[in-house]
Amino acid sequence: MNQSYKSQLLDNAVSELGKLPGIGRKTALRLALHLLRQDEAEALALGESIINMRKNIRYCRVCHNISDTDTCDICADRTRDDSVICVVENIKDLLTVESTHEHKGLYHVLGGVISPLDGVSPSDLEIQSLIDRVAAGGVKEIILALSPTMEGDTTNFYISRKLAPYDVAISILARGVSIGNDLEYTDEVTLARSIINRVPYK
Amino acid sequence: MNQSYKSQLLDNAVSELGKLPGIGRKTALRLALHLLRQDEAEALALGESIINMRKNIRYCRVCHNISDTDTCDICADRTRDDSVICVVENIKDLLTVESTHEHKGLYHVLGGVISPLDGVSPSDLEIQSLIDRVAAGGVKEIILALSPTMEGDTTNFYISRKLAPYDVAISILARGVSIGNDLEYTDEVTLARSIINRVPYK
Repeated sequence: MNQSYKSQLLDNAVSELGKLPGIGRKTALRLALHLLRQDEAEALALGESIINMRKNIRYCRVCHNISDTDTCDICADRTRDDSVICVVENIKDLLTVESTHEHKGLYHVLGGVISPLDGVSPSDLEIQSLIDRVAAGGVKEIILALSPTMEGDTTNFYISRKLAPYDVAISILARGVSIGNDLEYTDEVTLARSIINRVPYK
Repeated sequence: MNQSYKSQLLDNAVSELGKLPGIGRKTALRLALHLLRQDEAEALALGESIINMRKNIRYCRVCHNISDTDTCDICADRTRDDSVICVVENIKDLLTVESTHEHKGLYHVLGGVISPLDGVSPSDLEIQSLIDRVAAGGVKEIILALSPTMEGDTTNFYISRKLAPYDVAISILARGVSIGNDLEYTDEVTLARSIINRVPYK
């Protein structure tokens, strides 16, 4: 790999870009050569935005969402309903839920799901801080918006047991056939559960 | 777009990453969140390698290849044949030709091809410096390794006319059916020219 592109500077940039997920060595080279063709200011802006983000980003003290401040914009928003907390696995899921505009309450970012195979135990996640938020009072409902996977279900179960002593409603996302998808492409497990959990036609 | 991810730092990084070719906003967000999950050192290394490359990269005084030094490794390599110069459009093409290990001579990077539609005229390219290299003597052959497109052909024609006064052989890449490709997928123009320019079977 050394000196393969006749420039150590290019080599370094290609190898760093190639570490990004989904970006192979060929794409990394294409990106690096693109940055060399662009205005210097653009390439520097990219490099600096990455360094700046990584150095200065903070996490909300309350919900562990990313934030530029001590408390994130969502937690600080007085118009949101602070009696409903939506529990998500990570920031990406928070953004996805937020983009539906259906959740008017606050969030709680776990930072993962319980997964013994990957060595993730409850203590690695922000579960205790969620219990603390509920214990502090004022929370009426916890919406568990975790992935409908084995790990997600395990985490749902663990959290619901932990919250059992508190007077709080716990709900999970509805599961069933995807809207707009042809039934023939629906997996059998989902379809079977959709039949078992069928709802009256309104 | 402002504050769409509840963090100006993340917003900036996503918008800069999204300017890269082939990287849309969704991928940019995925990359930015990946960088936030990684060790800080890795994200900083990426940012710094980009800034370093863009600030410090130089171009070979002779052939205009990228280089960390005044003269690139290829031009400085005494074992290479300096009587044969392969003319390429850009650094990517130079790397592609170099990866075939079939060219033992030097290179000359034009920085583009003549393209009136895109406003690229001969004076925008490193054509005069190529003439100067030939005029300086010692060059026996110029291999024009430009793309077999209208613009490439125009550039080939222009360079060959400019080099006419000099005692130098000019060659272009062989054109014909791609090796390993089924004939039914070969375009008709290429196939027609392959028939016209057919060669004796050895």
